[in-house]
Amino acid sequence: MSDLTIALDIMGGDHGPPVILTAALKAIQLHSDFHFILCGQRQAIEPALAILTAQQRSRLTVIHCDEVVEMGDAPAHALRNKKSSSMRKAIELVEEGKADACVSAGNTGALLTLAYYILKTLPGIDRPALISVMPTTSHHKVFLLDLGANVNCTSEILFQYGVMGSVMASQVTGNASPRVALLNVGEEDIKGNAQVKYADQLFRNAKGLNYIGYVEGDDIFTDHADVVVTDGFTGNIALKSSEGLAKLVINEVKRQSQMNLMTRLMARIALPLLKTIYNRVNPDQYNGASLLGLRGIVIKSHGNASAEAFYYAICQAMQEAKMRIPEKIKSKIETVLLEQL
Amino acid sequence: MSDLTIALDIMGGDHGPPVILTAALKAIQLHSDFHFILCGQRQAIEPALAILTAQQRSRLTVIHCDEVVEMGDAPAHALRNKKSSSMRKAIELVEEGKADACVSAGNTGALLTLAYYILKTLPGIDRPALISVMPTTSHHKVFLLDLGANVNCTSEILFQYGVMGSVMASQVTGNASPRVALLNVGEEDIKGNAQVKYADQLFRNAKGLNYIGYVEGDDIFTDHADVVVTDGFTGNIALKSSEGLAKLVINEVKRQSQMNLMTRLMARIALPLLKTIYNRVNPDQYNGASLLGLRGIVIKSHGNASAEAFYYAICQAMQEAKMRIPEKIKSKIETVLLEQL
Repeated sequence: MSDLTIALDIMGGDHGPPVILTAALKAIQLHSDFHFILCGQRQAIEPALAILTAQQRSRLTVIHCDEVVEMGDAPAHALRNKKSSSMRKAIELVEEGKADACVSAGNTGALLTLAYYILKTLPGIDRPALISVMPTTSHHKVFLLDLGANVNCTSEILFQYGVMGSVMASQVTGNASPRVALLNVGEEDIKGNAQVKYADQLFRNAKGLNYIGYVEGDDIFTDHADVVVTDGFTGNIALKSSEGLAKLVINEVKRQSQMNLMTRLMARIALPLLKTIYNRVNPDQYNGASLLGLRGIVIKSHGNASAEAFYYAICQAMQEAKMRIPEKIKSKIETVLLEQL
Repeated sequence: MSDLTIALDIMGGDHGPPVILTAALKAIQLHSDFHFILCGQRQAIEPALAILTAQQRSRLTVIHCDEVVEMGDAPAHALRNKKSSSMRKAIELVEEGKADACVSAGNTGALLTLAYYILKTLPGIDRPALISVMPTTSHHKVFLLDLGANVNCTSEILFQYGVMGSVMASQVTGNASPRVALLNVGEEDIKGNAQVKYADQLFRNAKGLNYIGYVEGDDIFTDHADVVVTDGFTGNIALKSSEGLAKLVINEVKRQSQMNLMTRLMARIALPLLKTIYNRVNPDQYNGASLLGLRGIVIKSHGNASAEAFYYAICQAMQEAKMRIPEKIKSKIETVLLEQL
């Protein structure tokens, strides 16, 4: 029996509180070993709670927050002028030890800034990174980071990301020695920019990491590596461009299948097949990016997440809380840095 | 009647001369208004020419080259030690004015280095860029550059890439004012790294370009822009990661369709539909990246191109030779730079 607590920002996301609440209520109903704190406008939350049993209701706290971080708010504005926002409150609960993790589907820039400012990074970590699991050809999990938390990465930061990714992969998959790779434009030693080349040296000199060298963009979706490390600029564009191609495939299936009677019939018959493919590449399946490297757990859901997708993000927060990921990262980075002395 | 000449490196590519020769012979047979110079080992080439008519043979020159740039050769080694390679000869023919364009499926790094060294960049262009057309949701052409020629890009170089991409898009599609965008991690002004932010300023201050601001990774596959500009590191990874996802989809179709009798039947019936989707995302369809910004036309084919895919690359060389792309870029960059004075 766990007595862990998850704080949820009810106000974030493109679809507003109803979608987030649907996911939150599902989590409350299905996970009796967790407490939940719902941060947001009480009048938006309370009516939805009527469906809960008294026991479920007892595992739930509502904290009323006056303000909402809007999708268009500049991060600095959210930080300075919205001190009682639901997003900030959820993060503060983690910082105060009242919650073990928090989840938001709100403004990414604001979430990164608030989390970095309030929680601070772990010792030995300069900047946090967004990490997520990618779909692969073999149903094996590849963790890609950074997905956009930090667009300017030094070699040292790339190295720290490798350590964090290795901890995450090893905790989630149970693989004691996950293969860590650097994303590059070729596999040969001479390829790449200065940051990547020096990061490669740092990895080669480190002990306690299973570093396998460079991989290319297409290797993100194969089983060449378990952790793929890159800067937040490239990582974000790799993620978004592959999502773009996934959308292209999905649209093409729809378009082709409506071309004429014959293709409609073909598509109707092949529907389960097409649906499986759709599900494999649909970014919603992989919702919930973790912000790693902070002194607490913060999960970022896609802004346009459905209730189902937001529920995945909550599950991820629960999993990381159970695994105590920040403590594991702290311990691993200490070991790796000590080995270098 | 054109009297343009295309030089082909017969020795490059993963599959060796037979595949390249098949493509070359097809081009010779189908395009009677072009001359071809085949660079490579005479003994590998001559026997294949027997199928040509005397008229076809008269439009063809074979230049024997002793050496071959291997896929594993370091660019510096290819430059210094393989002075009579087929790749180098093809580029030298362009430099000497004996060919209007050249095509190679060989070692990318060596091709970029040799082309840069032998042909030099146009006035006003600091570095060449690899450009290619991407598949989109609406069958409209999006040109993405740089795909990996230059991993370290200043803002000025990104700006030059925008000018080059604009010329290419306008020549190929006939659109007099193609929309040029910068690839970034968000569409808001505050997003991005220093190079991208300053390049944005250069584009905003320039006249004679239809600059539309930032786009994100998924916009590469939509019709938001006609030209998407990024540095060679990010561009290569965007291209490769979307190719990786395309391969994932194709493999998933194959895997799912062999699961059981029912899915086999579904796949059989939906085969034409699946084939259309496959063709839309299959990187072979988009084979032939142009090296822009040089004083001559160089087309890089995928190393693992099939004869069909290499033939596309030859067609692209012929098209660019007809359009005299380098002259058009020279003229456009002069105009844009003069406007800035």
